[in-house]
Amino acid sequence: MTQPRHSLARRMEFLRASEIRELLKLTQKPEVISFAGGLPAAELFPAAEMAEITRRVLETEGSKALQYSTTEGDPPLRALIAERMNRAQHTRVTADDIMITSGSQQGLDLTGKILLDEGDVVICESPTYVGAIGAFKAYQPRFVEVETDDQGMVPEALAAALAANDRVKIIYAIPDFQNPSGRTWSLERRQAVVDIAARAGVVLVEDAPYAELRFEGEPLPALKALDEHDNVVFLGTFSKIFCPGLRCAWLVAPADLLPRYIMVKQGADLHTSTLVQRQVACYLEQFGLEDNIARVIEVYRERRAVMMAVLEAELPDGVTFTRPEGGLFLWVTLPEHVNGRDLLEACLKRDVAYVPGGAFYPCGGNENHARLNFSFMPPERVEEGAKRFCAVVREFLE
Amino acid sequence: MTQPRHSLARRMEFLRASEIRELLKLTQKPEVISFAGGLPAAELFPAAEMAEITRRVLETEGSKALQYSTTEGDPPLRALIAERMNRAQHTRVTADDIMITSGSQQGLDLTGKILLDEGDVVICESPTYVGAIGAFKAYQPRFVEVETDDQGMVPEALAAALAANDRVKIIYAIPDFQNPSGRTWSLERRQAVVDIAARAGVVLVEDAPYAELRFEGEPLPALKALDEHDNVVFLGTFSKIFCPGLRCAWLVAPADLLPRYIMVKQGADLHTSTLVQRQVACYLEQFGLEDNIARVIEVYRERRAVMMAVLEAELPDGVTFTRPEGGLFLWVTLPEHVNGRDLLEACLKRDVAYVPGGAFYPCGGNENHARLNFSFMPPERVEEGAKRFCAVVREFLE
Repeated sequence: MTQPRHSLARRMEFLRASEIRELLKLTQKPEVISFAGGLPAAELFPAAEMAEITRRVLETEGSKALQYSTTEGDPPLRALIAERMNRAQHTRVTADDIMITSGSQQGLDLTGKILLDEGDVVICESPTYVGAIGAFKAYQPRFVEVETDDQGMVPEALAAALAANDRVKIIYAIPDFQNPSGRTWSLERRQAVVDIAARAGVVLVEDAPYAELRFEGEPLPALKALDEHDNVVFLGTFSKIFCPGLRCAWLVAPADLLPRYIMVKQGADLHTSTLVQRQVACYLEQFGLEDNIARVIEVYRERRAVMMAVLEAELPDGVTFTRPEGGLFLWVTLPEHVNGRDLLEACLKRDVAYVPGGAFYPCGGNENHARLNFSFMPPERVEEGAKRFCAVVREFLE
Repeated sequence: MTQPRHSLARRMEFLRASEIRELLKLTQKPEVISFAGGLPAAELFPAAEMAEITRRVLETEGSKALQYSTTEGDPPLRALIAERMNRAQHTRVTADDIMITSGSQQGLDLTGKILLDEGDVVICESPTYVGAIGAFKAYQPRFVEVETDDQGMVPEALAAALAANDRVKIIYAIPDFQNPSGRTWSLERRQAVVDIAARAGVVLVEDAPYAELRFEGEPLPALKALDEHDNVVFLGTFSKIFCPGLRCAWLVAPADLLPRYIMVKQGADLHTSTLVQRQVACYLEQFGLEDNIARVIEVYRERRAVMMAVLEAELPDGVTFTRPEGGLFLWVTLPEHVNGRDLLEACLKRDVAYVPGGAFYPCGGNENHARLNFSFMPPERVEEGAKRFCAVVREFLE
């Protein structure tokens, strides 16, 4: 990006265009097998049903579905979301606890906006979601990464980070099928982190885009379901269980924060598309999402199995990877000396792409990882791409 | 709003829920004649055509219209917008100069985000759009109001404000049928302000939601059309010329700023709804907006005439009002001693609502004005409401 002629806000120095993103942009050729994005399988979107739903919404509600609406969102949609959450995530929320957002990304942005001053601290898993880093960075916080293992964020490490840092405003977590690691938190860890956050009086942000995409094992309660002190902000979205292109998501916020979220959303975009909200609400009423989610799970489970089988067979010694029980991603860890950018460049020469791990560590380092997405490509492409990836890794380590 | 339990960002002290908004919320009874909102006439929205367009988009493009898309926005939509702008506003922009936003409100928010540090200065008309005040306030600027008369912002006053204030980052203007005043800038003033802003190197933000809704007189070039130094950010929207509930708008930014807008939009909501963008683009291709705009103009022109006739006949001496050549609003100025809040309460008792002028002055004061919207209510309600308003004003001044 060239030097600006105009005088920018200081926050723009923190927000740099990702070099990785630029690198990956160059590779959107059809011959590239991309494990880089976080895209759902588009062939599962119910396009015909959406056309029918839209016709019905516009026929029965007319112009009202095209008019301005309230910032907090469509009341029937909020009621349907509350009902689904209480069923699927064992929460006890009502429509009045919910605000509709223009994607969960907006939930992250508005969270930064109401909570963060420059120099405040965001505690996150290590690694964590790159989009959350980007959203929070606009408010110029310091990030503190907390040790995270296969059971989730380590409670002792979280307590130590809280003790060592003043001005912690947010603890950010993705407890189910984490992006990028694919890990899922144990029940014990969930309870411990919820308790520690509440005791510290620090808002715990639970980002749950994948929670309903479980391929195996038993669902675990959301952090919000364990939240006895009204201290958890829950971010839910229709992007991974329905259609991401609609940009329709929601948040559940503690009673003191919800009116603030509504206030800043009003300043940010007035409200989420009225028509989109009515489309989603009517789809939920008419079809529900259970069949759709079942299809998604079946397809992603197979793709994950294909990818894991190749990695299992063909990755050399010294390279490990996670075995996610759901979601869209798995996470490969290479020996520490491996430079992720060089590996990516070698992979791109073989027409296979992924996101190098460094992007997921707000404090830097850790270039020796790779996030592989298994949801977007059909199984035969997943297999071929995984083989190419493993071949490049083997050459690289020789 | 109750005291928060959690520690908030300092910006939240600046952002207070509007008391006026709360007051007006209580009045959403059907018997109230509301001149308070800025709502278009919903009966003019093409609901049936939108259903048909949606069917066609989903049939021909399938799931792609429901998938994630790029942050800058749909390329065909951006090309259509450039073509329309160059025709209607005499600009010379290309699709590559344009970013799609989730409503113009988002354009305002992102402008604050890339340009404003705490204590920076926003120069604006006096009065100015309350939603812009709200969007910018989140970035904690100081506002400097510049004298504005029936020809627009006064150039000498603007130059003086620039000379008197360090750290001016934004000059914000609504040159056509301004919200709230209904005023339109003369060509001379447009040229002068464009030149002064360019010479100062300060970004000039042109908010143009109403520019195409001209009832009489000749269209004047957009500030962007006079911008020889690539210094103007133009905010355009489909809200007033098509359907506001879609939340689809755009901005044209100087070459050094556009990549920054894209970067912060990515953090704010990834992108505007793919389906909405495809719906708007296909509607533009299929039907254009010219017939729709012609219908809107005809309807609003009549409502404005009805309102103006009543105000002309029934407002007492000492009360003046603007005669807008387009847009949605007119602006009543009462004697200085009148307290706008008291007048509003008296009007609400008679079931007529409007927005008191104080809300449109970021530096406070000026409670002796009233913004009246004439686009939303049918003519007979406009007439009845205007009569009630005049009756209350007369009682008040006696």
